[in-house]
Order: sequence, then C-alpha cells, then structure tokens
Amino acid sequence: MNIREETKQMKLAAPLLAAMPIEQRNRALALIETRLNEHREEIFEANRKDLSLALENHVAPAVMKRLTFDEAKLADVTQELESLQSLPDPIGKITLHRQLDEGLTLTRVTCPIGVIGVIFEARPDALVQISSLCLKSGNCAILKGGKETTYTNRILFSLIHEAALEAGLPAKCLLQAEQHNEIDELLACHESVDLLIPRGSNAFVQYIMNHTSIPVLGHADGVCHMYVDKDYDIAKAIPLIIDGKTQYTAACNAVETVLVHRSIAEDFLPRLADALHKSGVTIRGTKEVNTMIPVDVIPEGESWHKEYLDLILAIKLVGSTDEAISHINTYGSHHTDCIITENEETARRFMTLVDSAGVYQNASTRFADGFRYGFGAEVGISTSKIHARGPVGLEGLVSYKYKLLGHGQIVGDYASGKKKFHFRDL
Amino acid sequence: MNIREETKQMKLAAPLLAAMPIEQRNRALALIETRLNEHREEIFEANRKDLSLALENHVAPAVMKRLTFDEAKLADVTQELESLQSLPDPIGKITLHRQLDEGLTLTRVTCPIGVIGVIFEARPDALVQISSLCLKSGNCAILKGGKETTYTNRILFSLIHEAALEAGLPAKCLLQAEQHNEIDELLACHESVDLLIPRGSNAFVQYIMNHTSIPVLGHADGVCHMYVDKDYDIAKAIPLIIDGKTQYTAACNAVETVLVHRSIAEDFLPRLADALHKSGVTIRGTKEVNTMIPVDVIPEGESWHKEYLDLILAIKLVGSTDEAISHINTYGSHHTDCIITENEETARRFMTLVDSAGVYQNASTRFADGFRYGFGAEVGISTSKIHARGPVGLEGLVSYKYKLLGHGQIVGDYASGKKKFHFRDL
Repeated sequence: MNIREETKQMKLAAPLLAAMPIEQRNRALALIETRLNEHREEIFEANRKDLSLALENHVAPAVMKRLTFDEAKLADVTQELESLQSLPDPIGKITLHRQLDEGLTLTRVTCPIGVIGVIFEARPDALVQISSLCLKSGNCAILKGGKETTYTNRILFSLIHEAALEAGLPAKCLLQAEQHNEIDELLACHESVDLLIPRGSNAFVQYIMNHTSIPVLGHADGVCHMYVDKDYDIAKAIPLIIDGKTQYTAACNAVETVLVHRSIAEDFLPRLADALHKSGVTIRGTKEVNTMIPVDVIPEGESWHKEYLDLILAIKLVGSTDEAISHINTYGSHHTDCIITENEETARRFMTLVDSAGVYQNASTRFADGFRYGFGAEVGISTSKIHARGPVGLEGLVSYKYKLLGHGQIVGDYASGKKKFHFRDL
Repeated sequence: MNIREETKQMKLAAPLLAAMPIEQRNRALALIETRLNEHREEIFEANRKDLSLALENHVAPAVMKRLTFDEAKLADVTQELESLQSLPDPIGKITLHRQLDEGLTLTRVTCPIGVIGVIFEARPDALVQISSLCLKSGNCAILKGGKETTYTNRILFSLIHEAALEAGLPAKCLLQAEQHNEIDELLACHESVDLLIPRGSNAFVQYIMNHTSIPVLGHADGVCHMYVDKDYDIAKAIPLIIDGKTQYTAACNAVETVLVHRSIAEDFLPRLADALHKSGVTIRGTKEVNTMIPVDVIPEGESWHKEYLDLILAIKLVGSTDEAISHINTYGSHHTDCIITENEETARRFMTLVDSAGVYQNASTRFADGFRYGFGAEVGISTSKIHARGPVGLEGLVSYKYKLLGHGQIVGDYASGKKKFHFRDL
C-alpha cells in the first residue's frame, strides 16, 4: 500500500465525510455495534490466534491482558458505542455569530479536523474506540495497530469499515495500515494528515513526536505528584497515595513522586511507610527521608523526572507549598498533580500555579481520564497546551471554520472610510 | 545571552504571570501606552536611524513603508492598546463545571499558554501589538524582531518592559532577542517554549516550521481563490475580484487564482479582462482561457499552488462547483476562499466542502483579518486545524486546565463499584 497516495485520497474524501448528517454518522456506529456482536465468535477466534502467538513469544502476563479481546471487552466497546451515539453532534455548532456590517455576516462553526492518523500498541479495543470517535466527529482515520494483535485488528477493522460503507459514508473514510514500515511513511504525510494520535509506551510516543512535523496529540510520560501539605488530613492522605500509586501502576496518571511538607514529615512518614509496605510498594527517597524511614536512597544528581510505572514511589521533603510547586513545574510532566490539604488558600495557590493539565485537591490523580470526567470516551490524554489539553474526548477532534456571507462587499470601501464596521453579535 | 537558560527561567515565571489579576495586566497596557507617547521623539529618532541604514542598504520602497514607525503608526498602536484594555479577560473563564459525584467537582478554566516565542520580520509595530496581546492574556513572550529595525525594536522593547515592571509583572515576563543566531537557539527550546508565532515571508515561516518541534501558529502561504459560479451577479463579481487581487497584493488573503464556470466564461472573461487591465493586473491562464481572452499561457505541469503576491492573477475554467471545490482543496492553502453566486444551495455546498479557515460567499477574501472580524487585534492567521484557525486574537493565546476538588475520593471505590459517578453539570 502506498500510504502517501492513500492519505491524499483520504484528504479529498474528508470534506464529504464532514458533510454527512449526524443521523448517518450515528447509523454507522449502530451498524458497527451490530456487526461486532454478530461476528463475535470470529473476533474471539482471531484473538485466540494472536494470544497463542503472543504466548509463544513469551509476552509478559500484564501485556497479555491488554491484548485480550473477549466477551468482557466486547461488552465494554458495545457500551461505549451506545453512549457515543447518544452524545450530541460535536460538529456544526455555531460558536460565533456576528454582523460585521449590514448584509455582511460572520459565523464560526465547528467542523472535523480532517484526516487523523492513529498509531497504537496492543489493545485491540482501542481500534474500535478511536475509529468510532473519529466517525462520530466526521473525521477520516488511518489506523495502525500493534503487530501483536494482527488477526484481531484485521477482523475488527473489516467489520467497522463494512459498517461505515453500509451507512453510506465515503469508502476512504477509514484505512488500515498493517506494515511496520508504514508508520514512518505515515509520519511523512504532513500534506494530507492533520493530526496524529499515538497510544502506547513512553518511548513509542516520543519516537512519533520526534519524527514528524504533523501535530501530535498525546503525552509521552506521566510523572504525577501528590504534595502532602502541613494542613493535611491523614485520613485522606494515606488512602489517596495508596490509590494513586497502586490502583493501576502502569497508567500515566499513577503517582510517581510524593512531596511532603518538612514540618509534618516526622509524624507522617512512618505511617505512610507502613501503608506503602502493606501494599507492596518500594520506597525511594532522599537522604533526609532516610533519616526518618528506611528507604532506597536516591543518588545525588539523579533526575526527579522518572516514571516508574511500577510499585515504586519516590519521596522528597519540601519546606513550603511554593517549593512543591516549583519542584512539580520543573520535574513533572504537566499531566496531573494533587495537593492534600484542608487549607483552601494553600490549595488555591497550588492549583493556580501548578502548570499541569489537571490540578487536584484531595482527589486521586487516577481520576484523570475521559470516562471519569464524563466525556463518554477519550482518544487520549494531552499534556500539550496547544489545542486539547487533559483527557480528550469528541471536543478535541473538532476544529472550526469561519463562514462569511456578503452581498459583494469589498475591503476597499472600509479601508477608504466610505463604509464602517459595526460588529453586532447576533 | 543564553536563550535556553533564559527561557527556562521564563517558564518558571510563567505561572506567576498567569496568576496576576486582570487589573494588573490591564495596568501594564495602560503604562505601555503612556510610555510610548511620552517617549515618542526618542522612538521616532531611533526609527529614523533604522530607515537611513535601510536606505543605504537599498531596501525596496514597499519594505521601507513597513519599517516606518511614525506618528501615524504610534496612533494606531495607541488605539490598539486602548481597545485591548477594554476587551474582557480571556483567562479564568469557566468552560465546564461538573459534579462527578457528591463532593467531587470538576472545573475547566481557561489559562495562558505559558511561554510564547514571537519571531517577526520588519514591522516594529508588530512588537508592540504582539507583546501587549501576550501580556493581556497572561503569557510570557520572547521577542525577536528583524535586524532592519534594530534601534526601533530596542527602544520599543525597553519601554514596554519598563511598563510591565512598573505594573508589578514578573521581570521575566518579556525578553528581547537581538542576535540572528538566537532564532535557531529559540527553535530548540521545546522544553520551555510552548508556542512559536512567526510573522514574515512565506520562506521565513516555512523555515521556522521545518526547524522546530515546538508548535507553530501561523501560515506559510496564502493561495486564496474566488470561484465565479454560473449563477453569478456580474455587478458583484468584478469589484470582488479587483478588490481581492489589488487592494493589497502583498497580503496573504489576496486572491491568486480565479476559477470560472465554463458556461459563463465566453461572456464573463472579456469583461473581467477589461477590468483587470484597467487595474494593471497581468493575467495568466490555461490554453482554454487564452482562446477567449489573451493571457500569458501557464505551461502544462506548472503547479496551481503558486502565490504571486503581485499584480498577477491566474485564471482557469471548471465544469462544475464540485470541480472548483476539488481544485481549491488540492491546490489551495486552506486559508480563505470565496464563491461568487446568487444560488444559496450552491453556496452552501461550496462553504461546507471547501476545507479552508475562511469560506466566503460574495465577499472579498481580504476580509480575513482579526480587526475586520472584530477581534480587536490579531497575532496572526492560522491555516492549521489544530488549536486556533483563521485570524487569531486573544482566544488563540489561551489554553485551559482541569481543576478537581475532592474530599479524599479514590478511584478504587469507583472501579470496584462501591461508588458510582453521577455526572451532574452545575
């Protein structure tokens, strides 16, 4: 397959998809749901093939779980497809309506982004999730899944594509790439591809970001913090840290570093250490922390920008909220950071000055997720401040265009002063 | 100056500027206005120095005009500074307010982007305009102006910076770069700089876009079209094309190509040619066009993606609105394109399917401008569909963050089913 040629054709098909009424885009989602359920046995069969190959290749059990597409996963994607159909149309929304002058009316209206390249590792359910989010928002998508689930991806894609065609969407609305070298080809298609969404490991996303001039939506790493302020409530602090660290260690929103106000450390650290040990968490810390609880001392000069993605937690003491803020802004990944305090003033300062997509008071960083924010579904979490930030749902998949309706107005008349704008919002 | 070190410090100052109340940011703008007016003679003197050096270097008259900073330019920037102060605060706006569960409240609030790098050629008034837009929106800015106005830029920057300090903004809120090699250093500061705004020639912007991994807001080229439909009104068509082509040929929103429906060409082209010749416009066209009016025939195979920025217009015939749409989506720059028609249905199709930041009916493409859209001021025009699109005012200089206020809620309780989200918008 010639990716450059295919994405060029997709680019020309994109406006046609963008013009499809919401009923037709929703019908495609309903048909996907039906087809996936009707062909469940074939999907499971394909997935078993992938899993047995993965077993032969000694894939780690945690990864095996992510490769699995079974009844439970099918139930999840079915539910997501249903909730997606019930969400309002993200495109065609008027966000500005202004008369510039008599008979000269400006409208800003949301529209799809166009052509989105999605590259993901493992997790075949991501293929269903992201392609359906793209169709709902009128975007064409080119999808490249991980090689570990080749068989599963192939059948899922063909069922989804057939459903889109049956709903009358343009044939070029979806495309599957299967070869690894096609990733690099895709990264070079800046003329046709408007946005890339990579989903996978830190190194994988970093590779994508460093090898393309196409805008990338996502995050490479998640170095999230919890700061335990001197005005903390221990009944909240311990469960929050345990949840943030252990509820799902492989997640980008898991806590990697806990900062503790020096004035409460002597009292708090032994109790925290006790809870962490019970949860199987290994503690790393500064020499100062080591004087209060036994820890693996972090060597001088080692960066605090470290994502463990494991049952390991780093602890450091700070002298003030401002020192905590400065540490987080310097070493964090601008993802999600939490202050544990009962002091509203301190919380306000922390939440204003910490430069992250999510700033929390007394809530687990694990809440940073499109489903938990009530977005219905998410394409990923962005740590960029350009375009969408934080968990990205349908809203992050739209752009807008300006429509100007005139009756022959020319700029010369306004430049010469013969006519004047009156700017009246309608 | 070590740009990497300076921007790092700016990154740490950025949250402090972001936390400044609007009164203080507006006060900085008022002080800039006062200072520029009080020191007008010094500014004009510096500008005369730049202009005489430019004369020695045989700079073209059109460019000389752009380098000039005189009473008229001062009046313009003074007016812009006043209108900017009267605009509402773009930051701190709540765009989502939702109770996820009892005592767990999510707020999405607009905030500055952070650190913005602005690189511009010529036009010293751009320095005032962009730095004041950045301060109003709470963004730190590092400014690199063209070497042709070194003296003017230097005094303008120092007056603006003094005003910002007097208003109590952080010292590191603004920084001026003066050396050419500092551009490349700035392009490498992806860890500290959140956004680049280049203003200048096509080649200049293209260079910036190709040499950085920092997001770039702007456009390299403006290949704008007017399509004259068969249901056109000649009384509108001729003035629109003349205005679009000649009102300011060097602008990105000037028309470069006119597409004409074949069925009206025999009647329309001679009249158009007559008007274009009277305005001093040279016509280039296809062989087919040349059978109806004398033109410079465009060689086979020459790209239609050509930006003349001069009194030259390309003309091509098309058989249908869809052919016009396809030509524009293939060869245009997704900037601003217009249909000249009295047929509402045809206009609707064109405006839906043309994939550009601005889609117009019977209005000059020259209207594509922040001032003419009523935005008060603009930092530039974006042809990207990520983040801001079209003319970009204050709204394009903000991001947002999610604030979550809890009382110790952990994700484990929701994952286990012990608790349930209820998602209630407040």
